Amino acid sequence: MNRSLVVDGLEINNWTRPVIDEVRSGGVDVVHATVGVWEDLAGAMTRIGAFRHLVRNNADAIRIVRSVEEMYTAADDGVLAVVLGFQNASMLGDDPEMAGIFADVGIRVVQLTYNIANHLGSSCYEPVDAGLTRAGHRMVAALNDAGVLIDISHVGNVTGRHAVDASAHPIAITHGNPASFCDKARNKPDDLIHAVAARGGMIGCTLYPLFIGGSEITRRQYCEMLADLAEAVGVAHVGIGSDAVLGWAPDALGWMRSGRWDRPVDSSEIPDFPPWPDWFDGPKDFPSLAEGLTEVGFSDADRAAVLGGNWLRLYREVFGA
Amino acid sequence: MNRSLVVDGLEINNWTRPVIDEVRSGGVDVVHATVGVWEDLAGAMTRIGAFRHLVRNNADAIRIVRSVEEMYTAADDGVLAVVLGFQNASMLGDDPEMAGIFADVGIRVVQLTYNIANHLGSSCYEPVDAGLTRAGHRMVAALNDAGVLIDISHVGNVTGRHAVDASAHPIAITHGNPASFCDKARNKPDDLIHAVAARGGMIGCTLYPLFIGGSEITRRQYCEMLADLAEAVGVAHVGIGSDAVLGWAPDALGWMRSGRWDRPVDSSEIPDFPPWPDWFDGPKDFPSLAEGLTEVGFSDADRAAVLGGNWLRLYREVFGA
Repeated sequence: MNRSLVVDGLEINNWTRPVIDEVRSGGVDVVHATVGVWEDLAGAMTRIGAFRHLVRNNADAIRIVRSVEEMYTAADDGVLAVVLGFQNASMLGDDPEMAGIFADVGIRVVQLTYNIANHLGSSCYEPVDAGLTRAGHRMVAALNDAGVLIDISHVGNVTGRHAVDASAHPIAITHGNPASFCDKARNKPDDLIHAVAARGGMIGCTLYPLFIGGSEITRRQYCEMLADLAEAVGVAHVGIGSDAVLGWAPDALGWMRSGRWDRPVDSSEIPDFPPWPDWFDGPKDFPSLAEGLTEVGFSDADRAAVLGGNWLRLYREVFGA
Repeated sequence: MNRSLVVDGLEINNWTRPVIDEVRSGGVDVVHATVGVWEDLAGAMTRIGAFRHLVRNNADAIRIVRSVEEMYTAADDGVLAVVLGFQNASMLGDDPEMAGIFADVGIRVVQLTYNIANHLGSSCYEPVDAGLTRAGHRMVAALNDAGVLIDISHVGNVTGRHAVDASAHPIAITHGNPASFCDKARNKPDDLIHAVAARGGMIGCTLYPLFIGGSEITRRQYCEMLADLAEAVGVAHVGIGSDAVLGWAPDALGWMRSGRWDRPVDSSEIPDFPPWPDWFDGPKDFPSLAEGLTEVGFSDADRAAVLGGNWLRLYREVFGA
């Protein structure tokens, strides 16, 4: 159980067999895969059903897992292990019992808000963040009870800090970077990152182009950011959450970002997926990232921790709770 | 694991603490409890959540179970074991993956149709029963795969017979009587009962007044029906499914029978719950039923089988599959 696995802390792919094979080609053993962003309860269950159907038809290549033990078994069997998660709490509605119900069908990670405020708290894009609501506190407790990892990647900083403090278990920024490295609303201030780490949580650094400063950034610059972060908060709290967006048609980005609430009114407003750096064009390039970590001085052990071991430690602590 | 448990094969109560205590007062160890009749996916999940909340608040008295082993553990712990089920497939929609998803959240019994025809087949009240549909065949296979017991109590006779033949596992009439005993559309013809039994399934004889000929029937008459049935199909295929309706306000019956599709147009059409026989006014009177079985000549072993052992055998065979 102590050998190293490669874990991508968040991908939001449109999963098909070619996508599965592309991810596996990067030596990735475990992916936390988003299966809900703007859905309601029924829509989210339907997406989980669709993912199960994909797995049924590709059982030689991919498997839904619910524990670290199952991740190791999947790796032994040579199949990609997928942890299912939501990037929103819309599907939970106002019912804390839905935390356990979704956990029972395999959901192991839930982000409290996506790109807009909801009944639990504020997103990172709101002008005012009033923090975790009363229902938010109840839902955090229910997610804790259900062994679901709480994610604050798109959550507002006040709400996120409240979640760190309210949660009985460590929480995660599954895909985000320090704002001190790239100043965007989606990236996180140092104090929040430190609070997450101090409680035993993780920051999964993203490679999504908008949050690293664009595709021109070099591998060395990115990996030096990881080294600085490991120095600041402890290497045990740093991982990767690539935010890979494989397999989507270009028009999917509008849905992904804005769902129904802010649909473009003319075609010039339809966003395009941004270009990725040539040294990391998706999870197939995890070996390139590994080289970069070595180049900036990570030991083999620390490199293995950042590329997967730290996620496994957090998953074991939270999922097993 | 060989001692006897008392199992009620179907109750459709409005569960509260007084109802739980009333059921327990009859020495009932296990109840298959209906938690969905007319709901869609989200509505059904919400009802499961509400039942979980009830259990959370009454953990000293009731527990949701998913296996026969858990039923025995619950009995050892002195709490009522509840198997969750639906009396309709409306919540599964057209998606066979929902069979496994609902199984994961505890659903162990699904009736293919309720009181109206649906996408899977016909109810017992339709003028024409075209049998199990193409989607019905797919859903039967999915329910088999998920270890869910298929119930045909309210299903049309042609559809029900198709389900017996299509199912890889035995199926059940969880709450219904021989039509030869009481001639109602909800009761079953002998050939269907024999087919269910021949495949290893069960008929759970109901005590719902409309399907025993009214509250005037005597205990001896009812128990002689059970003896005749055991003689005809084998005692191993006979059980009890009381169809208890505890805890409901009078106006609930309209919803229960007709949902939204056939709401009464004036108040004179609102149905009333019928009176029950004085010797069985609900699951609290299981001891009376036990006495009646002895009176008509059931051995102690056969009586224990009819009062629970046979359900446990079927549950073990299907849930474990």
